[in-house]
Amino acid sequence: MGDGNTSTRDRPMRVGIVGLGTASTDIVPEILRHPQLDLAVGCDIRAEARTQFTHRYGVPAFETVEELVSGKSVDAVYVASPNRFHCEHAVIAASYGKELIVEKPLALTLAECDEMVAAAAANGVRLLAGHTHSFDAPIQAMEDLIADGVIGEVYMVNNWYYTDWLFRGRLADELDVGLGGGVVFRQAPHSVDIVRVLAAARPVSVRAVTSSVDTAHPTHGGFVALLTFDSGAVGNIVFSGYAHFDSSELTFGIGENGYPRSPDTHLAARRRISALGSADAEAQYKNSMRFGGDQAGQWLKSGDRDPSSQKHPCYGLTVVSGTRGDLRQTPDGIFRYGSGEWLEVPVARAPLERAAELDCLYNAWKDDTDLPSHDGRWAKGTLEVCLAIIESGRTGREVSLHHQLLPRTAAAAGAGQRR
Amino acid sequence: MGDGNTSTRDRPMRVGIVGLGTASTDIVPEILRHPQLDLAVGCDIRAEARTQFTHRYGVPAFETVEELVSGKSVDAVYVASPNRFHCEHAVIAASYGKELIVEKPLALTLAECDEMVAAAAANGVRLLAGHTHSFDAPIQAMEDLIADGVIGEVYMVNNWYYTDWLFRGRLADELDVGLGGGVVFRQAPHSVDIVRVLAAARPVSVRAVTSSVDTAHPTHGGFVALLTFDSGAVGNIVFSGYAHFDSSELTFGIGENGYPRSPDTHLAARRRISALGSADAEAQYKNSMRFGGDQAGQWLKSGDRDPSSQKHPCYGLTVVSGTRGDLRQTPDGIFRYGSGEWLEVPVARAPLERAAELDCLYNAWKDDTDLPSHDGRWAKGTLEVCLAIIESGRTGREVSLHHQLLPRTAAAAGAGQRR
Repeated sequence: MGDGNTSTRDRPMRVGIVGLGTASTDIVPEILRHPQLDLAVGCDIRAEARTQFTHRYGVPAFETVEELVSGKSVDAVYVASPNRFHCEHAVIAASYGKELIVEKPLALTLAECDEMVAAAAANGVRLLAGHTHSFDAPIQAMEDLIADGVIGEVYMVNNWYYTDWLFRGRLADELDVGLGGGVVFRQAPHSVDIVRVLAAARPVSVRAVTSSVDTAHPTHGGFVALLTFDSGAVGNIVFSGYAHFDSSELTFGIGENGYPRSPDTHLAARRRISALGSADAEAQYKNSMRFGGDQAGQWLKSGDRDPSSQKHPCYGLTVVSGTRGDLRQTPDGIFRYGSGEWLEVPVARAPLERAAELDCLYNAWKDDTDLPSHDGRWAKGTLEVCLAIIESGRTGREVSLHHQLLPRTAAAAGAGQRR
Repeated sequence: MGDGNTSTRDRPMRVGIVGLGTASTDIVPEILRHPQLDLAVGCDIRAEARTQFTHRYGVPAFETVEELVSGKSVDAVYVASPNRFHCEHAVIAASYGKELIVEKPLALTLAECDEMVAAAAANGVRLLAGHTHSFDAPIQAMEDLIADGVIGEVYMVNNWYYTDWLFRGRLADELDVGLGGGVVFRQAPHSVDIVRVLAAARPVSVRAVTSSVDTAHPTHGGFVALLTFDSGAVGNIVFSGYAHFDSSELTFGIGENGYPRSPDTHLAARRRISALGSADAEAQYKNSMRFGGDQAGQWLKSGDRDPSSQKHPCYGLTVVSGTRGDLRQTPDGIFRYGSGEWLEVPVARAPLERAAELDCLYNAWKDDTDLPSHDGRWAKGTLEVCLAIIESGRTGREVSLHHQLLPRTAAAAGAGQRR
């Protein structure tokens, strides 16, 4: 792939989905909506999930990944199984020559990442790191403005997010750090990627403090991380999944899905979970939102969902500071604060989250080109930062990074300079 | 003092002011406004400053601190001379038995702090650390709510401030870190004190990155600092004095003086300084705002100053997160985000900044009691954190802290428990 071959594929890409949990209930509709994607097959260990999936979409669902990939009817596999199975499932799918999208985090260890990257390379398939908000159009637009030198040299990138992650309904697996649970494994990839993309440099170290302060949900629920970059820039991430305060107050009322957030979102979430009264009842509630459950597809779907009210997603507040200006997201684009002027730059709406990734992989597959960004090596860097946050939180020490890449535009600029 | 003696002084406290720079142009009006303070005398090495001061207020002004304090007409001295003279001037004044308020930072080294604390103790005078925004009524009200357990255990305190400090007009001294210049010495005491007060614990280490990215103003212009606390809480401070973005956007449009900030404040500041064209012209501009200059008292006085529009000061955005709730400032008080409710707590207006300190020292002097907070030992802790920010920024290493006190309410609670 990516060898200058200009052939294009003119048929839809057939996608199989591994893991029919709540993530898949977001992914499937995007596959169905995409004119060039076909939902081909699903896979889950839960019989009731397979039954409901097949009944609803008229496509087969298997118990194992091997069964899913052994047929010839699948071009690409979306790995949305529990985090601890990402590596195993991706390697199997790669060995059958399937293109890959893998949910964040890519895996639980750097060795697993290496195994996945190697398997993809050996089998000539693409490995796309799925679903981080660094795909969002305003983040990509900021990256482009920075690459164009609009704000000079970046010296500071900050992302702050106060949300109700711990109170959305969680299974035991999602809280067990050893299984890839907690907010560092499951949420930090978003902010880490946003900060890495916008710093336009390689991070070299992480110092972080993690917070675990809710006995009913024993896991990492919050963290603060300070990242240093080889450019001298500093990145700063604040995340609280325990938050009573809602940082959408700082982002024009817009949440991470682009919809306005009701001011009582956090209160309602806490009330709902606290009314359940036990971890078992909470698991039952969460299970009802997965395929096989009677509320499948309804998770986080409450509140205003009128498409006309949807704006660009705001994964917390992001502010990028450069020597000649600062950038910040708005509902419809970016504020660009310069030395001589201050203006809003509109950003065209673009596919979001799952749709963006699916589109990204589809285009690379169709044209047989490299992924433009967010490949397996990039996602290994994301995981390295997440693991460093956890380690620094545990040891109280700074952690050096050794597997970091430049983001897309900075790498291109560097390549340009070397020419 | 503070020995249970209940005598009160029933005459005004006579205040002398050392250093007739821009700070003094804020301090003098507060002395004049206070019904129980008399402006007694000033002191500055600049003859034109002394002349204008005496002409305007009808009180003497001397060239040296010794002359200022050797008379019997002064009870207290406000040390507002350049940072590198704070220690020398405070020690002289203490040796003459004068009560002390010293501008932030208390001094340039911990040894100087020790000398000042010892001089105050030896001479039986109070040493009040002046002017940090931790005196602001909403910060004090948050401290009280936290002490009352309203938000449970604090696990995270964040303060973010994007402002135009570098573009307000600066003298060479104010930029020379060796002389106590730059934003860490001159601004960090505000955010460090806010975070220490609200964490309700002792900080134990600092990891920070400092930014120096404007060749026309070669100094620390920004920093990010991560503070760990003995409670397990984390404090996070972001400061940019280069900012194009104005963080009053995050604080209801209110700035650190409590007045609404015009959205073009940063643009106007940059235009003004850039039109001056040279460091000499900038120094001339700044000098014109000090006593002796033709614009004395006008520094930072532009914009809306209608007293009816004044709100509580917002020194950037401060969010405190506890296990049972979060707190955030509003223009008229505090938002308290709880698990079951979300409400605004009004906070009564109180004396601000210089007025607050003067009032604090006056009350302790009148009643012959200890200072309630912000004494010399506390300010030594503030300086220790600032020095740690500078050191960590230079070395890239974490710095341990050894001279930290609990804030007022946490110390009182601890004393209560020990009873």
